[in-house]
Amino acid sequence: MTTRITLYDTTLRDGQQTQGVQFSASEKIEIAQMLDALGLDYIEGGWPGANPTDSEFFAAAPQTRATMTAFGMTKRSGRSAGNDDVLAAVLNAGTRAVCLVGKTHPFQVREALGVSLDENRENIAASIAHVVASGREALFDAEHFFDGYRADPHYALSCLTAALDAGARWVVLCDTNGGTLPSEIGRVTAAVIGAGVPGERLGIHCHDDTGTAVAGSIAAIEAGACQVQGTLGGLGERCGNASLTTIIANIALKEDLAERFSTGIEPDALARLTQISHRLDEILNRAPARSAPYVGTSAFAHKAGLHASAIMKNPTTYEHVDPERVGNERIIPMSNQAGQSNLRARLAEAGLTVAAGDPALARILDLVKLREDQGYAYDGAQASFELLARGELGQLPRHFEVERYRVTVERRRNAKGERISVSEAVVVVVMGQQRTLSVSESYDETGADRGPVNALWRALGKDLGPYQTTIDDMSLVDFRVRITGSGVDAATRVTIDSADGNGNRWSTVGVSPNIVDASFEALVEAIRWKLIRDGVAPA
Amino acid sequence: MTTRITLYDTTLRDGQQTQGVQFSASEKIEIAQMLDALGLDYIEGGWPGANPTDSEFFAAAPQTRATMTAFGMTKRSGRSAGNDDVLAAVLNAGTRAVCLVGKTHPFQVREALGVSLDENRENIAASIAHVVASGREALFDAEHFFDGYRADPHYALSCLTAALDAGARWVVLCDTNGGTLPSEIGRVTAAVIGAGVPGERLGIHCHDDTGTAVAGSIAAIEAGACQVQGTLGGLGERCGNASLTTIIANIALKEDLAERFSTGIEPDALARLTQISHRLDEILNRAPARSAPYVGTSAFAHKAGLHASAIMKNPTTYEHVDPERVGNERIIPMSNQAGQSNLRARLAEAGLTVAAGDPALARILDLVKLREDQGYAYDGAQASFELLARGELGQLPRHFEVERYRVTVERRRNAKGERISVSEAVVVVVMGQQRTLSVSESYDETGADRGPVNALWRALGKDLGPYQTTIDDMSLVDFRVRITGSGVDAATRVTIDSADGNGNRWSTVGVSPNIVDASFEALVEAIRWKLIRDGVAPA
Repeated sequence: MTTRITLYDTTLRDGQQTQGVQFSASEKIEIAQMLDALGLDYIEGGWPGANPTDSEFFAAAPQTRATMTAFGMTKRSGRSAGNDDVLAAVLNAGTRAVCLVGKTHPFQVREALGVSLDENRENIAASIAHVVASGREALFDAEHFFDGYRADPHYALSCLTAALDAGARWVVLCDTNGGTLPSEIGRVTAAVIGAGVPGERLGIHCHDDTGTAVAGSIAAIEAGACQVQGTLGGLGERCGNASLTTIIANIALKEDLAERFSTGIEPDALARLTQISHRLDEILNRAPARSAPYVGTSAFAHKAGLHASAIMKNPTTYEHVDPERVGNERIIPMSNQAGQSNLRARLAEAGLTVAAGDPALARILDLVKLREDQGYAYDGAQASFELLARGELGQLPRHFEVERYRVTVERRRNAKGERISVSEAVVVVVMGQQRTLSVSESYDETGADRGPVNALWRALGKDLGPYQTTIDDMSLVDFRVRITGSGVDAATRVTIDSADGNGNRWSTVGVSPNIVDASFEALVEAIRWKLIRDGVAPA
Repeated sequence: MTTRITLYDTTLRDGQQTQGVQFSASEKIEIAQMLDALGLDYIEGGWPGANPTDSEFFAAAPQTRATMTAFGMTKRSGRSAGNDDVLAAVLNAGTRAVCLVGKTHPFQVREALGVSLDENRENIAASIAHVVASGREALFDAEHFFDGYRADPHYALSCLTAALDAGARWVVLCDTNGGTLPSEIGRVTAAVIGAGVPGERLGIHCHDDTGTAVAGSIAAIEAGACQVQGTLGGLGERCGNASLTTIIANIALKEDLAERFSTGIEPDALARLTQISHRLDEILNRAPARSAPYVGTSAFAHKAGLHASAIMKNPTTYEHVDPERVGNERIIPMSNQAGQSNLRARLAEAGLTVAAGDPALARILDLVKLREDQGYAYDGAQASFELLARGELGQLPRHFEVERYRVTVERRRNAKGERISVSEAVVVVVMGQQRTLSVSESYDETGADRGPVNALWRALGKDLGPYQTTIDDMSLVDFRVRITGSGVDAATRVTIDSADGNGNRWSTVGVSPNIVDASFEALVEAIRWKLIRDGVAPA
């Protein structure tokens, strides 16, 4: 018999407090659907009335199996719960559950609210009772609970009891400032349960300010709490909230926990965890975190030569779980740390079988090293690595050569006096005996100028007539730029992610002190890789 | 009385296993000096003989107060320790201490080494004895210890005892695959000590595959281990090692730990923790992590409107420690989540005092929201935010206007047949009655073409004659590019970091579908901000 742990997601509320994160209402709807499909029990959608996006989201919130929850705060002093307009806006969202934050730390009550301890506790009770009377499930989020318990355990506990007595389904111990370590969280949670708060009505809400939010959450459930709050990937203010992504995988896959606890996440949903995580990154418009547990792009990457050769014999030698369980995959990256065993494994992934001891292996390693010194990075650009290796192996068909190009960007006023920009590219390509000169602007369907890289891409596309059907369904889906080195050694590294209609996605890299030239190199490599992958014969 | 915890840094060895990380020998030297100044006890410099960079580093390793340590593995079977060339290369580095990894998990011994359990244990003992006989301090890194202990506690323990009996100063419990949770780490560490291994000779080495490496390390010292191994910022293979940065701050600043444990990190060194962390990011050529505990750029950023106003009354309301203790700073970022209290705080940081209720505040918030919808991000571009606010407050002097520009990039063969690129920019600037037309190429002192943004920067610089002395000491220190939105809404966001000779560093942002135009906008804003900051009167 395992204890069922309730998972409460606050990506859409606390996650939105992340610096640089701004969800639109439609993004919030998509995320809510993702969370629901994953199998979470509660989805906290935001604070209705606090900002237009949250209000818009609740007005159009999707139907979910999970309990959709609105967040707000306990009523202010000097008015009844029924007359508090902030609370009314929260209830008006019409969600099945409502979570209200209130203070349980005497210092905070006096400092931030300026009311008496009794009055604060009465506000908590009256607010919870009002939610329950409205026919909703009520949760009480005990802000600063651990600091409060440290300062005055009797008062902090009495606030929990007041909420429970008023009908709260759950009281949640919130480590608002994120400063409490796991051992204290475990100790205090056990003491709260010992004082009479049932574990089945007790939740934990951790932040990562000491780097221990996941461990703190686990310490609380080991002590008897039955609800865990967190966010996808640990999004959240300051150092973030506890990562539900990691907690879900830990509970499901770590024997120690799996034999004692269970959640609503089914194995097939767990196998989509990496995909869900990457989709969130796309919505956030950021590169997926490399080192995130379970779902990071490096989470199962084996760089050390010794590890890589052992992994090839038996993956359990250096993997604590099978990456497929969370929908992730094993990676043997290139680098000058890598031995020839890594290299052969990576070539094999690209469909290039090379015998052990082939002298081309050493040449490829040397060339990778040389290029990395110049600023190239092949860890994240497998397609460019493959082209480089093919070159050394004598397996690189040359579909075309670029003789020269010129691109112009101009910013000026047009005849109507509007400020416009115009980009124009000329590219000269040689294919066998044929030499083509093409020119392109870069206006999109709305008449906006998409810039020099787009103009080059279009001019190249025009030139490559014989290969047109192959490259027609290519699109450039991401574009990343880093400065490498410094001073006169500084160079711009451009990584381009391309995709095609067959669901292929590949990455190429270009390096030059000139950003346009670096982009052009990555563009050309993206096309070369696609032509090779599709088995197109050189014209 | 506190227990002195020994800190063992492996940034230069395990940290180098991070995907995408490649230290040069000179970078390793700089990092070693940083670690030494911080006050760490051991610095593991690498694996001499395993790759040219590590060998080069040890040949030129700096003199450190910390014990410089070479890493290697226990001797192979079928030869004596004295005849093992891999081990000889490690000893030849001449370090005061040597750490040897060996296996303690029966499965690993059979699977990866293919030798008997007894033979493996004899190899450990003979290797450690050889290191000690060479007059060095020996450490034994017990690979896969927790998995081994789970499978066969008797054998795993016997390997530790063999190393200790052979003279090892330390035996280190290594959770190589990172799959062990803190409660098990604590339990096993206590059991190892209970079985007779002295805590004063016991270390812990965690990886973050379950997101609990910091907590696992703390669980081990709470159970009696006296050495913690980790890396700056948690660099390392897969999900990374335990972050010594976080562990150092936790032990120093969290009362629970500080009253029981101490380290060699003095308060003034602790106050450089953020600076050291940022310097490592510069060497790694990556943006500082935002959400890293203590040292992240968002670690003390307060986005929620309610939090921000409480923080302004009393910082301890939403901060678990004072950011100055670790050399970090409080940030009140802008966003549509922010209320007017956030906004006024941020304006005050920029030296702009605005009365509460000033209608300009609402206009600024609206404009920020509008711009953020277009792809601008002001969280990381305070200087651009300041210019935007000054515009709404009527406090934006116009030093110059750009009438038009044109930039050309050409890639072709020169007269010698070499492939070269050439960038050229023309800029027309109006200052009062004066109109200037300037042109610039972008060759650097080595004759390399630095690209269109550099050419624009130089042409602008020529044009701005009257302000020359002010902008002479400006330099562009970083340049970041992100694609925002998608499809026809896609735009390029360019963030430029500038610096001047007075130690100022400021960030500006530009957005356009055209990368050159976005860069130009950020460039112009960087110059405008500098002119305002230096109090230069418009010509």
